[in-house]
Amino acid sequence: MLISCVVYKDGKRVADILPNQIHEYLSDPACFVWVALLDPDDADLEAMGREFGLHPLAIEDAKNGHQRPKIEEYGNALFVVLHIIEPMGDDLHVGEIAVFAGPNYILSVRSHAERGFQDVRARCESEPDLLRNGSGYVLYALMDAVVDRYFPVLDALEAELETIEEGIFARDGSPRANIEALYGLKQRLGITKHAIAPLLEGISNLAGARVPVICTNLREYFRDVYDHLLRLNQTIESIRETITTAISVNLSLVSLQENETMKRLAAYAALVAVPTLIAGIYGMNFEYMPELEWHYGYALAFAAMILIDAYLFYRLRKSKWL
Amino acid sequence: MLISCVVYKDGKRVADILPNQIHEYLSDPACFVWVALLDPDDADLEAMGREFGLHPLAIEDAKNGHQRPKIEEYGNALFVVLHIIEPMGDDLHVGEIAVFAGPNYILSVRSHAERGFQDVRARCESEPDLLRNGSGYVLYALMDAVVDRYFPVLDALEAELETIEEGIFARDGSPRANIEALYGLKQRLGITKHAIAPLLEGISNLAGARVPVICTNLREYFRDVYDHLLRLNQTIESIRETITTAISVNLSLVSLQENETMKRLAAYAALVAVPTLIAGIYGMNFEYMPELEWHYGYALAFAAMILIDAYLFYRLRKSKWL
Amino acid sequence: MLISCVVYKDGKRVADILPNQIHEYLSDPACFVWVALLDPDDADLEAMGREFGLHPLAIEDAKNGHQRPKIEEYGNALFVVLHIIEPMGDDLHVGEIAVFAGPNYILSVRSHAERGFQDVRARCESEPDLLRNGSGYVLYALMDAVVDRYFPVLDALEAELETIEEGIFARDGSPRANIEALYGLKQRLGITKHAIAPLLEGISNLAGARVPVICTNLREYFRDVYDHLLRLNQTIESIRETITTAISVNLSLVSLQENETMKRLAAYAALVAVPTLIAGIYGMNFEYMPELEWHYGYALAFAAMILIDAYLFYRLRKSKWL
Amino acid sequence: MLISCVVYKDGKRVADILPNQIHEYLSDPACFVWVALLDPDDADLEAMGREFGLHPLAIEDAKNGHQRPKIEEYGNALFVVLHIIEPMGDDLHVGEIAVFAGPNYILSVRSHAERGFQDVRARCESEPDLLRNGSGYVLYALMDAVVDRYFPVLDALEAELETIEEGIFARDGSPRANIEALYGLKQRLGITKHAIAPLLEGISNLAGARVPVICTNLREYFRDVYDHLLRLNQTIESIRETITTAISVNLSLVSLQENETMKRLAAYAALVAVPTLIAGIYGMNFEYMPELEWHYGYALAFAAMILIDAYLFYRLRKSKWL
Amino acid sequence: MLISCVVYKDGKRVADILPNQIHEYLSDPACFVWVALLDPDDADLEAMGREFGLHPLAIEDAKNGHQRPKIEEYGNALFVVLHIIEPMGDDLHVGEIAVFAGPNYILSVRSHAERGFQDVRARCESEPDLLRNGSGYVLYALMDAVVDRYFPVLDALEAELETIEEGIFARDGSPRANIEALYGLKQRLGITKHAIAPLLEGISNLAGARVPVICTNLREYFRDVYDHLLRLNQTIESIRETITTAISVNLSLVSLQENETMKRLAAYAALVAVPTLIAGIYGMNFEYMPELEWHYGYALAFAAMILIDAYLFYRLRKSKWL
Repeated sequence: MLISCVVYKDGKRVADILPNQIHEYLSDPACFVWVALLDPDDADLEAMGREFGLHPLAIEDAKNGHQRPKIEEYGNALFVVLHIIEPMGDDLHVGEIAVFAGPNYILSVRSHAERGFQDVRARCESEPDLLRNGSGYVLYALMDAVVDRYFPVLDALEAELETIEEGIFARDGSPRANIEALYGLKQRLGITKHAIAPLLEGISNLAGARVPVICTNLREYFRDVYDHLLRLNQTIESIRETITTAISVNLSLVSLQENETMKRLAAYAALVAVPTLIAGIYGMNFEYMPELEWHYGYALAFAAMILIDAYLFYRLRKSKWL
Repeated sequence: MLISCVVYKDGKRVADILPNQIHEYLSDPACFVWVALLDPDDADLEAMGREFGLHPLAIEDAKNGHQRPKIEEYGNALFVVLHIIEPMGDDLHVGEIAVFAGPNYILSVRSHAERGFQDVRARCESEPDLLRNGSGYVLYALMDAVVDRYFPVLDALEAELETIEEGIFARDGSPRANIEALYGLKQRLGITKHAIAPLLEGISNLAGARVPVICTNLREYFRDVYDHLLRLNQTIESIRETITTAISVNLSLVSLQENETMKRLAAYAALVAVPTLIAGIYGMNFEYMPELEWHYGYALAFAAMILIDAYLFYRLRKSKWL
Repeated sequence: MLISCVVYKDGKRVADILPNQIHEYLSDPACFVWVALLDPDDADLEAMGREFGLHPLAIEDAKNGHQRPKIEEYGNALFVVLHIIEPMGDDLHVGEIAVFAGPNYILSVRSHAERGFQDVRARCESEPDLLRNGSGYVLYALMDAVVDRYFPVLDALEAELETIEEGIFARDGSPRANIEALYGLKQRLGITKHAIAPLLEGISNLAGARVPVICTNLREYFRDVYDHLLRLNQTIESIRETITTAISVNLSLVSLQENETMKRLAAYAALVAVPTLIAGIYGMNFEYMPELEWHYGYALAFAAMILIDAYLFYRLRKSKWL
Repeated sequence: MLISCVVYKDGKRVADILPNQIHEYLSDPACFVWVALLDPDDADLEAMGREFGLHPLAIEDAKNGHQRPKIEEYGNALFVVLHIIEPMGDDLHVGEIAVFAGPNYILSVRSHAERGFQDVRARCESEPDLLRNGSGYVLYALMDAVVDRYFPVLDALEAELETIEEGIFARDGSPRANIEALYGLKQRLGITKHAIAPLLEGISNLAGARVPVICTNLREYFRDVYDHLLRLNQTIESIRETITTAISVNLSLVSLQENETMKRLAAYAALVAVPTLIAGIYGMNFEYMPELEWHYGYALAFAAMILIDAYLFYRLRKSKWL
Repeated sequence: MLISCVVYKDGKRVADILPNQIHEYLSDPACFVWVALLDPDDADLEAMGREFGLHPLAIEDAKNGHQRPKIEEYGNALFVVLHIIEPMGDDLHVGEIAVFAGPNYILSVRSHAERGFQDVRARCESEPDLLRNGSGYVLYALMDAVVDRYFPVLDALEAELETIEEGIFARDGSPRANIEALYGLKQRLGITKHAIAPLLEGISNLAGARVPVICTNLREYFRDVYDHLLRLNQTIESIRETITTAISVNLSLVSLQENETMKRLAAYAALVAVPTLIAGIYGMNFEYMPELEWHYGYALAFAAMILIDAYLFYRLRKSKWL
């Protein structure tokens, strides 16, 4: 689906055009064309490929979807694939945006993602001074927008981790639920990792020594995106390590709880076993057992049971077994 | 076994020739020869070696099989070894394809693998424009085909992992079966790792700065294979990490289950121990135990046992011990 | 909030000026301006940005806060962000100092941190020979001060770890408290790690081959800071590894304690079960049980119970079960 | 002990000479001398050192033994140390071969190793075309022989690991024996690791860009050795990872077994406890207990015990507790 | 404390001089001055700093002590810090030697270490040919001596590890003691690691391509030290990995022991529970229990208890529960 197809000149919007007019404007190096597609079918992509003269392998990647995030150079054009991560209930949904950036065109292809990038276009158009840098700046603006949307996702994961941590150290927590939650969290963390880690190397090139033509003069901007990615990556690593520690801490606490349960059981067992022994003793059939003939023998035996249990209870409570 | 031996000129099939005619065509730089062998014996390989002038060490490697996947340069020729992974029941079978690629020849030697590469030849012949690039393009097409066949293998492993994960968190799962399954999965994952990881470095050279002569102009194509390998490698790493986590999560759950079993046992023990104590008390032989003489003493004792057990049962159920 | 705004010439303090006079002095390459801000609002920062001609992306970073520590070049100026770590009760509080260092100016922006850097200014002014090196030296002095303040923080963490270690190996320690303490320690260690690790790469550039203009002649000084960071980083790694080992050692000790608890419980159970058996035997109703008729039968049975228990107790104590 | 001292010219054996004649032949660049020593004493080595003009540090290393495997350049000569690994009962014995390779000499010093390298000399002499390459080729041949002998060692370790794996998953295996076996295996794996890993870097230089003089033209040969080392290293890594997994899987299975043991114990306990309760009930001394007076009361009680136990047994067996 | 202050010329000792004469000899490039200090106070160091013209930052480091081991260049001089590790009872004591090495001077500052380096001076003076290389050679000799003293320290740690390993697999070992020992060993290993690892990078520069002026012609010698460090580092890594494995193996064995303890307890419980059941049965008060009236009823019941227990004992022993 075509979302928009606009020509810019000197940082300002010139005209909305039809896709089949694109090649007319491409020949003018002073202007650039910015096309946005949403979930296009193969025919659309091939048509665009012909219009812009895109490399068949890049078209192929955009068609197939499910690519790794990457930044590839094809001659003096760039082909960028980014993951779009959107929370969906308890899960994370992964969409994709593929961007073809040539000297005077930008083609963005969004797939399987709800939220669009209209705000990026608006922001760009409100800053004609920067937009004058051409397609490289639009590429930056798109990447910046995608990367900025990772922050709330990771913030949510961090918040979730903190909730689980509280559950782990709470006395009445459910270790089983904690483990499941940690496991689920780790899976979702993996999704963000796969979106972010592969970009780190690629984008450091855009900010580094050998900058592609369309990104010259924008070094600081791409370095800013790189810096954001580094920050996200650090957060991911830190969450990941905490999850690993939390799993092993949880295991230790389960073992401890087992230990405590065992002690408590043993304590209750003792409270039953000792009176049973006393009852057993006075259940013996010896002919000469003076206590049996005492008038208050039974009462005394009973009292003994209760007193011993009371004492045991006090001792066990004191030593924290109960 | 010779599968085919064909001469191509200008991207088109010219003639099927006999192996001993090969050297006649090799002298013509405008055409190239594509030979495919299947499980050849040593004599066949040595004959080919003489025909093409291959390096004895490369011939030796092709003879012995069980090589690491690798991409080696011998002068202006390339020697490439790839693993072919084919599912066989519950196991993964590892075959091999060794490719000798010179300026105007391709010799592919497939060993211990069922499925052939006829489709690669067909695809190449259907795209004469690309085939015109000569042996380098055929090398790409073969590598691309081998690598593409890794995807369904890894997809199957991923699906298997998901099944095991469900088993781990299911209340009635068998932890022993889960562990065995995880262990088996890890072994099979290792097989794919050994096929993919060693290629990463070698192929990045074909796509990088110092490209061998026969691969010039094909940089984007080899980069595409490299990109696929990166994607596969990421999947492997991700499965591997999940397996490690799953093993430790499974261990935690086993410990938890132990804890739960212990509580349940203790609960049942209590249900038996308390009536036993009561029975013990009324089994005492004191002369003055008024209850013993009551007409409903026995009934009351019995009722006490049942009521206490009922109450215990209710409490234990409530606190989830039963 | 403006803390101070001073002009230096030839290593000596020349004058305290107003912020809006700054640009007058910037044009004189012989002097440099050192401005210190505390928790400024956005308007303050933008005013400074205009005064010094700072890059909007750097201003943006200083505004937002919560940056990764970093050292970035903007043309011939440097933008440095450092974390300030201050202990606050049991927790570590993270503030920030952002430093803009140009050929003849230094602008430091401190946020969310209690302790200032007046001592740095005092030290610099007392060494006019070194201060003559200009803004590069002030940058060094600020970084050195921030980094030096990490040492007591890490020393405190190390001391804490040693206390926990003692608790782990103490017989009457609380494994649960140990685990919680280790977990908390690891979290705080992560905070220091995030302050220190990202700087390592950046600062090695200031001390290395391609030194930014404002840092020339100061190579040894920045290498000294780098060396301190390496030392801190080593301490962090060492604490981290020890925590990991301590967690797993603690788990082993919990298992061991479980084993010991179980043995002790079993020992007590034996001390009750054996007399119960004896009582059971003499509770049987056989007509011909000679012991039952003995005058001292009861006493003997009682004595047997006590003697057997005493012997058991002695054996169990000897084999360390009690 | 001198094993042999032979002069070669143009790839062919010329003469067996005495050690003190060596320097006469060294002056002729057309021939080269190949000397093999076995467990020499210090005096022998120093004599050789003087004869060949070897560096005192290299002589020192050869004297002391217990070196890391390494490849060092001394001017235009190479000093190579390799570990020789020989199985000895259940253990691995580590010997050493030190090779001094100069432009026209090879001195090999074998220590603490049983099997010699006569076969290498024989193979070299049977291929005069290759031997013509001089000392570099002999160096290759020796390294190739040493490295090839690592393969059966690692194959044996792999086979051993498979045996242990079977033991781990067998129901009647001994976890204690498995752990001891895994531990021992890991120790032996370490020995092979120490033989192989340090060589990887050194030998990649012989096969790489900056090749020492005596190895020119032999790039492919040393790359072949490198490739074998990579394969061995991969096998080591793979065994190592499997051992780690196997240890943790074994731990999980031990925990599981504990769980199963506990259930079984509890089942047996139930089979005893319930009849004990019934016996206790009918051991009560109430005056009015009608069952006690029934003629078949005892038989019925007995039957009840047996029936209840039979039912319990059936239930427990069904739920796999017995 | 000044230990010695000697002038050397042409590899030979010329004169013992007073510290304040040093600068007179420094001006003569043909001779060099070798000064050794022990635990100097700040004034001594500053005096030396003025005499030799040392960099204030290096002096500062030498004053403070507790540095990381490092090799730093200050102009054409080197500043080297090494840890001296000395066993002290069960602990490792860490001292320090700081060496300032200029074109014609060596200043060594030993702190907190018992054993001196007189033997190094003696060895150097006995080899005038090598000492002729000047301060670089003395630097090498000092580093070599420090590094060689690490070997017995690590050998002791290895021996300790072997003792612990034996304890782990011994049936009557104390797992608690093993864990404490492993933990302590790891701490001490960390001390050696901190002494050795930081040097690896620094010293590879002295042996590598860009050698500092004072170390020219000594490449082989520093490579020898580097090689020793690599060997030490390998030993450290190997011990470290073994400790990790040993901790987890120990944990497995503790779990196993728990399992065995539990079985043994259950076996003893069975030996008591079954006779208790029999006694309970014959303690029932049924009127018609024929066995009760048999003359040998009691004896038979007793015999039954003993026989059943004997049989149980035999079975339990056979199945290794006892």
